[in-house]
Parts: sequence; structure tokens; C-alpha cells
Amino acid sequence: MTASHTLQELAQLLGATLEGDPDAMVQQCRGLAEATTGDLTFLANSKYKDQLQTTRATAVLVGKKDETPAGLNVLRCEDPYFAFREAMVALHGYRQHPEPMDAEGGISPRAAVHETASIGEGTRIHPFAVVERGAVVGKGCWIYPGAWVGPDAQIGDDCILFPNCVIYDHVQLGNRVTVHGGTVVGSDGFGYATSKGVHHKIPQQGIVEVEDDVEFGGNCAIERATMGATRIGSGTKFADLISIGHGTTIGSHCLLVSLVGVAGSVTMGNHVVLGGQVGVAGHLSIGDRVTAIAQTGIASTVASDQMIGGAPAVPVEQAKRNMLAFTSLSQLVKRVRTLERAAKQAEPTAQDDADR
Amino acid sequence: MTASHTLQELAQLLGATLEGDPDAMVQQCRGLAEATTGDLTFLANSKYKDQLQTTRATAVLVGKKDETPAGLNVLRCEDPYFAFREAMVALHGYRQHPEPMDAEGGISPRAAVHETASIGEGTRIHPFAVVERGAVVGKGCWIYPGAWVGPDAQIGDDCILFPNCVIYDHVQLGNRVTVHGGTVVGSDGFGYATSKGVHHKIPQQGIVEVEDDVEFGGNCAIERATMGATRIGSGTKFADLISIGHGTTIGSHCLLVSLVGVAGSVTMGNHVVLGGQVGVAGHLSIGDRVTAIAQTGIASTVASDQMIGGAPAVPVEQAKRNMLAFTSLSQLVKRVRTLERAAKQAEPTAQDDADR
Amino acid sequence: MTASHTLQELAQLLGATLEGDPDAMVQQCRGLAEATTGDLTFLANSKYKDQLQTTRATAVLVGKKDETPAGLNVLRCEDPYFAFREAMVALHGYRQHPEPMDAEGGISPRAAVHETASIGEGTRIHPFAVVERGAVVGKGCWIYPGAWVGPDAQIGDDCILFPNCVIYDHVQLGNRVTVHGGTVVGSDGFGYATSKGVHHKIPQQGIVEVEDDVEFGGNCAIERATMGATRIGSGTKFADLISIGHGTTIGSHCLLVSLVGVAGSVTMGNHVVLGGQVGVAGHLSIGDRVTAIAQTGIASTVASDQMIGGAPAVPVEQAKRNMLAFTSLSQLVKRVRTLERAAKQAEPTAQDDADR
Repeated sequence: MTASHTLQELAQLLGATLEGDPDAMVQQCRGLAEATTGDLTFLANSKYKDQLQTTRATAVLVGKKDETPAGLNVLRCEDPYFAFREAMVALHGYRQHPEPMDAEGGISPRAAVHETASIGEGTRIHPFAVVERGAVVGKGCWIYPGAWVGPDAQIGDDCILFPNCVIYDHVQLGNRVTVHGGTVVGSDGFGYATSKGVHHKIPQQGIVEVEDDVEFGGNCAIERATMGATRIGSGTKFADLISIGHGTTIGSHCLLVSLVGVAGSVTMGNHVVLGGQVGVAGHLSIGDRVTAIAQTGIASTVASDQMIGGAPAVPVEQAKRNMLAFTSLSQLVKRVRTLERAAKQAEPTAQDDADR
Repeated sequence: MTASHTLQELAQLLGATLEGDPDAMVQQCRGLAEATTGDLTFLANSKYKDQLQTTRATAVLVGKKDETPAGLNVLRCEDPYFAFREAMVALHGYRQHPEPMDAEGGISPRAAVHETASIGEGTRIHPFAVVERGAVVGKGCWIYPGAWVGPDAQIGDDCILFPNCVIYDHVQLGNRVTVHGGTVVGSDGFGYATSKGVHHKIPQQGIVEVEDDVEFGGNCAIERATMGATRIGSGTKFADLISIGHGTTIGSHCLLVSLVGVAGSVTMGNHVVLGGQVGVAGHLSIGDRVTAIAQTGIASTVASDQMIGGAPAVPVEQAKRNMLAFTSLSQLVKRVRTLERAAKQAEPTAQDDADR
Repeated sequence: MTASHTLQELAQLLGATLEGDPDAMVQQCRGLAEATTGDLTFLANSKYKDQLQTTRATAVLVGKKDETPAGLNVLRCEDPYFAFREAMVALHGYRQHPEPMDAEGGISPRAAVHETASIGEGTRIHPFAVVERGAVVGKGCWIYPGAWVGPDAQIGDDCILFPNCVIYDHVQLGNRVTVHGGTVVGSDGFGYATSKGVHHKIPQQGIVEVEDDVEFGGNCAIERATMGATRIGSGTKFADLISIGHGTTIGSHCLLVSLVGVAGSVTMGNHVVLGGQVGVAGHLSIGDRVTAIAQTGIASTVASDQMIGGAPAVPVEQAKRNMLAFTSLSQLVKRVRTLERAAKQAEPTAQDDADR
């Protein structure tokens, strides 16, 4: 889907100030380097500002103070990246989901829906998707092929379950939750009691509670709690291949980048950002508005409003200085050895002094 | 499922000593903070011992020497965590698997089972599960929707294949093997012969052999061997998103935490524990009873009975001291610089001395 | 499948020089330690050369200059590992794919193929696989159970989609692309515009373009671009559990080992090798023929022809020296403290000197 807008229309829509031709038309968004006639582009990262000189875009979204070349149609706004998002929605909109093949009333006859399951109005269920006994699916959901909704699971309204995702029994998803392909929510927590070297499985009778507006990327794995619930707060977004341990609570409006691993029984606040491949040890707390850069290892409790890095994690500026120092660590060892030799050579002199 | 027990019954069942009301009833297990009347809870981590003062649980499982407040019903035992597991089994039991919808004799007519496949007694096969030609599935298994059992694969008795897991051709699973959602066992090993910059695929004609009582978490990937077998020993448990390279042998009764990566041709002993995000390089050996803390990088052979950390891995106490030292590495560089300046300033003085 | 060859035949086939019995027969390839009569084995890693003395193989592939014991049938060649690959193909060949059960003309009646989809000649589609509206699948493909080909996706010739892999809408795969079980190609990029603490989803209207001869291991996740395309160059091979961010370009003939994470908007050249658990930050470039050892953290642009390690990444020899130095970092701190004490003790003496 693409729609056309004049720059005047877009300026109004985005709350931007137009400098240029109000009647120029744009049909789509494209990157600074690729954009051409009919394209809207944006500058959100100053790293790319030189490309403003050469872009062939019909118009560019820029910040209030960005310098722009003469003759370029410019839409100025407080937050060009957010305005770009608004333009993407206006010009392109979101994915149009395919209707289930051969569907009768939105539910494919080749889906398997248990007679005790409840399916809300307008929900589509594709071939080879399964909704088990006692499950409740809300209104306006899209359940793609191969998605599995386990017994007594509850899915809110307007959820999207992409192909082959797995929602285990009793898991609860809020409204507008999106689960990308292959993601598993509610598999058993990694809980064993070890006796005489043998690991005895502990029944994992807890659940996973996912609040509204959560999105999971592809192939994540969210473990159910042993008792109680693993919780994912509203508006939190996961990238891909993320593992969440059993009984952990992730707050609201967090961002977790790919390959993050959070162990069990962690309590994480709101607005937390974990970079790629960050690891969080079990049984600890992370406050609100904590940001951890990529590959951070969090092994103890972190207070709110920290930006951290390294393993173990320290304030990010300190972490970056340490990482920089690390790049010449073997040189540092040599420098210490030189100092030690000098000190040793100095010693006999001191002895000489004593002998004088 | 929940069952009720008196504390007297439970004490007998768990081999615990009861201090308190033998007739008090418990119906379920809950955490120390959440437990209330009718709940059994436990203290296994001394970190939480203060909560004994405030818990509203009907009874608490504690160790032989834990101090407990007067008036609290207490079940004393050698290993409260193992006793808790026993209580979980007694009070809650394991997941009750859903019967396949529309099943005739346990096998859904909407499953695809090849006529040459052999299916044991009591095995249930859900809709849209597939068992290919020549595959042998034992007795009492549960094969969930979307699970795939490849040609000539062998599945033992009482295995559980959760939705959308993938068991490639010729893979062998022992008895009581559990495979959680999305896990792939037996995909091709990452084996190419590179000639003139082009990577030529080597046929991966080996298999994966998984022994009894192994459990895989969600979205793991276990590669088949080029020749011979990738092996997972009995009683070994995997968390989620774990990658095992081709031709590797994992011993018995190991625990691998989420996001562990083990390269190919590794030989790992028994009772090995690898923490989250640990990486193991290829073609090396790890002895028995080795424990590696989270994010350890194992790049060379490790003898038995080591507890290790860091990258490259060293004994864990040393690793922790090094990590601690790392948190002020940039300070250390400054201190060395200060020493160097002092040494340099000292030099001319020495020269002066010589000149005198 | 196994085939028999005389050593003479094999020597000719592999371009090797035979030292030994030209009429000896081999039926299969096996490892040095396991091989016995009728087996061909190989020495590609000098680490294993002692096993030449004890191998019971009928013949061994060795390099031009490897020393070999008398009486052993030897096939000498420039590149024993590549020759081994050729022998594997000759003796074992590649996996024979199972025909779809109950297939009519190669397409199972239990697959769901949209009437507007185009399916090439000789392509097999298994039960419970789905090809959505407008999708184009080339000739000679194997689409296993549970694989999903999204709307308007394009799949080239001779592709293999293993069970439960997910190819999102509009994704383009070249010819001879292999996608192992559970891998997701084209799920939404991790793109949100955050305003007042709330993450607003940006429509991900770009695609993924995968060129010819690419292979993905199990449970990878390749994000589609926000605009334009995420690109994977020809001949590039992925191991398992790899995450590629949105808008990233991976060059041709690269090798990515398991658990690698590459963030968005990265441009990577050709013949790049990333070891296990390597992380690459967003918006940077990596040149051609760069090799990063396992667990490297790449946080800035890397020129061509580098071999790197560490986090942040530095030349690999430097990285290894630093890692080695790190193993005794806490000792280094002590040594610096000793120097500082000595310097402090020296100070009053200097003062004494001045007082003299």
C-alpha cells in the first residue's frame, strides 16, 4: 500500500513547518541515498548530514536547527525520526495480512479449533493453525499458519500470531500483542532440583503474562514461571532470539535487542533498554530507565537511571574507558615490567647509599 | 491439577521433620512473598530468609539449621529445594497434555503419518504433526501440532515433542526425551570446504543421538554430524536458544543455560554446567564436573573438576578478581602513567648526582 | 546412499596421487579414529596426525608433504579437506528428500497453495506447508511440512525450505537457497520511534533479498528492512541462531558462525568470517575478507583484510596478547601497588637528600 500526499498535507499531518513547494507530491519514504523524485526522506542521525547535499528526494524531514541546502524542500519538526514514522504510517501503512485460504467466516476449515475454544469477532485463523481446548482468543486477531494456541491460553484483541509461533497452555497475552515467526511463549522454566548428580524436573505450573502492546521478534523463547508468572510489561518490544528465564518480570516500555538473555527471577523496571547480546544473571533487580550497551554482563542489582556497560557492569563512561584501556593491556604489562626493572636497578643504588 | 495434603502427610512424603500443626492442610506451592493460607513455601536461598518473618504461608520447607520464627509451621529437611520439588510433584504434578482433536486411537486424522512409520502403543499424534517414512516412534509419546519427525528418525518411549519442533531424518532420541517448541535437532552441520573463496557444502551424513531423559528448551539448534554422531548424554538438560555444533559430544547430566554455543567436534564430560551465553570453541575437550559461569569463553581444553570464568577461561576466583580489576582498568593506566612520570623525573636527578 | 569406489577411481576423481593398492575398495568416509576396512578417512588438521599411525582405514587423504606410515594406502592432494568433501559427495551424496505423502504431481493435497501462487516444475510441497497469494516458487524446490511462503514472496529454483521455516511476504530468495528448520526470513525490523517514553512501531515496508547459494542453519532470524532491503550475498553460509538486523547488507561468500548478532544498517563486504557469538553494532561498515574470532564485539568500522578480536575489536594478535594479559590482571594491579609503595617509600629519602 502506498498513498500520495502533497507536502502541504504532510506538513499539517506531521506538525512540521514546510520550506519549499507546498504542492510537490510524495508517494513513499526512502533512505537519503536512495530517494528520488516522489520520495520523502529524513535526517535523524547527523552522521548522514552530508547526504543532504546530494539527495534527489522531493522532500526531507529535518530537525529545527539542521542546516539544509537551498532549493531542497524541507519539512522542519521537533523530532524528525518520529515524524518519519508518522509519514511511514501515512504513506505506506502497516502490513496487509493475507486472508486465510478457503476461510468460512474468517476461520479456515483446515485450522484446528477446539469446540470449547472461544474465538472473538473478526478474528482470522489460517490453515494448520491450532487453538486448543479452553483457549480464548479475542476480537480482530490474525492467527497465521502453524501458530499454536495452547489449552486455556488467553489471547486479547487485535493480536497477531505470525507463522509457527507457539503459545503454551495458560499463557495470557494482552491486546495488540504481536508475536513474530517461531517465537515460543510459555515453554517450561529451566528448573531442576539436583540430587546425587541427577537433575529432577520441577513441574512448571506458573504462566506467562504479557501485557498490551508488546511485540516479540522472531525465534524468542519466554519461559513460564515455576509458580506465579513470568511477566512482560505493556509496550515492551523484543527483537529476535531473546531468552527470558522463568519467574522474571520485565517492566513496561522496555527495548530488548537481539540475543539478550535474562535469567530467572529477575525484576526489571520500566523504560529499560538492553543492547544486543546483553546477559542478566538471575535473582537480581534492575531499576527504571536503565540502559545497558551491547554485550554488557549484568551480575548484580542496578539502580534506576543508570547507563551501564562492561562485565561486570559499571557506568558506561567508565566501561568505555576501561574497554579502551583494554585494547593496549599487553602494552601496559610491558610498561609495568619496565618500571619494575628500573625499580630493581635502583635498589642496589639505595644499598650503595646505605653502604656509604 | 492440585491435590490437598496435611502437613503430616507431606512430612512423611518428603522425609521432613514437622514442627507445627500436623493437621494443617496445604493445596499448592507458592513463593515466600506470595504464599498465603493453604500454601506451602520454601527457603532454599538464604538471601530470602528475612521473608520467613512475614510470610503468610501455612507451612515452610527449611533446612536443618535455618532459624524460624515461633508459630510458623515448619518442615525441616536436608535439602529444602529438592523437597520443594517433591512437594510440587505431589501437589501439582506435571502438565496434562491435551488429547489430539478428533483423534481416532490417539492419532489425529489430520496428522500425516507415513504408512511405513511405526507408532507405539498409547502414542498421541496431534493435527498437522508429521511422521515421515521409516520413522519409529515408541510408546506413550505426545507429538504436538506442527512437530516433524523426519525419515528413519527413531523416537523412544514417553517422549514429548512440543509444537513445531523439528527432528531431522535418522536422528535418534532415547526414552523420556522432551523437546520444547521450535527446537531443531539434526539440521545440517556447518561444514564447508572452501576452495578459491567459495564454500562447498560437505554432505552431512552423520546423525544426532540423544540419550534418555534429555530435555531441550525452546528454539535450540543441534547440528547433525558430518560423519558419525553428535551425542547428547542421558539426563542432560538444555535451556533455550542453545546451539550445538556438528560432531560434538555432550556428556550425561549436564546443564546448559540459555544462549550457550558449543562449536563442533567438542568432547564434553558428565555433570558439566555451562552458564548463560557461554561459548566453547571447536575441537577441544572439557572434563567431568566442570562449571563455567555466564559469558565464559572456553578456547582450550579444560580438565575435570574446574570451576572457570572469563575469556579465555581461568579458575573462577581468578576470573572474578580479574573482572573486578577490570572495572578500574583505566584508573590503573593512570597510576602507571604517574609512576612513569615519577621515574622520569627521578632520572635527571640521578644524572645530576653523576654530574656532581 | 553409499557408493563403492576403488582407490584408483577415487584418485582420478579427486585429482590425487595414489600411493598403495589401486584396487582397494572404499564404501564410505569416516573419522581417523573410527575408520576401519572399507573406509576412507582424511588428515586436514595436523593436530590429529598421530592417528595416522593407528588408523584402520583402507585409505587416507593427506597433503603433499604429510609423513605417512609404510603400508598405509594414501591419496596425496593439494587440499585434503576439499578432496574429502569431493569424496563425501562421491561416496555418500546429499540427503535424499522424502516425497510428500499422498502427493499428486509433487504437491500434497494437504498443503495450502493459493490459487494465485505460481509453482515451478518439479517442485514438491509437503503436507501443511503453505504458499500464500501471489508467491512465486521456482523449479525443483523442496518445501517441507510447516514451511510458510508468505504473500508475494519469490523463491528461486532448487531451493530447500526445511520444516517450519518462515519466509515472510515479499522476501526474495535466489536459486539453490537452503533454509533449515525454524529459520525466519523477513520478520519485522526492530524499528520504533520513541516519543514520551512510548515506542511507536514504524511500518517495516522493506524486504529481504537473499542471493543464490545461500544456506541458513536452524532457528535464525533475518529482519526485513524498514525501507529498501536487507541483503544476503551469494554463497554466504549461516550456522544457527543468527540474528541480522534490518537494512543490513551481508556480502557474498561470508561465513557466520552460530549466535552471531549483526545489528541494523550494517554494510559487510565479501568473504567475511564471523566466529561464534560475535556482535556487530549498527550503522557501520566491515570490509572484504575480514575475520573476527569468536565473541568479538565490533563497535566501529573495520577496513578490509583484517583479522580481529576482542571488544572493542583490535587486530587479532593484539587481542590475544590482551586476553592473555587479562588472565593475570589482578596480579598486575598488585604489582602496580607494590611499585607505588616503593615510590612512596623512596620519596622521603629524596626529601632527606634535599635536606642534606
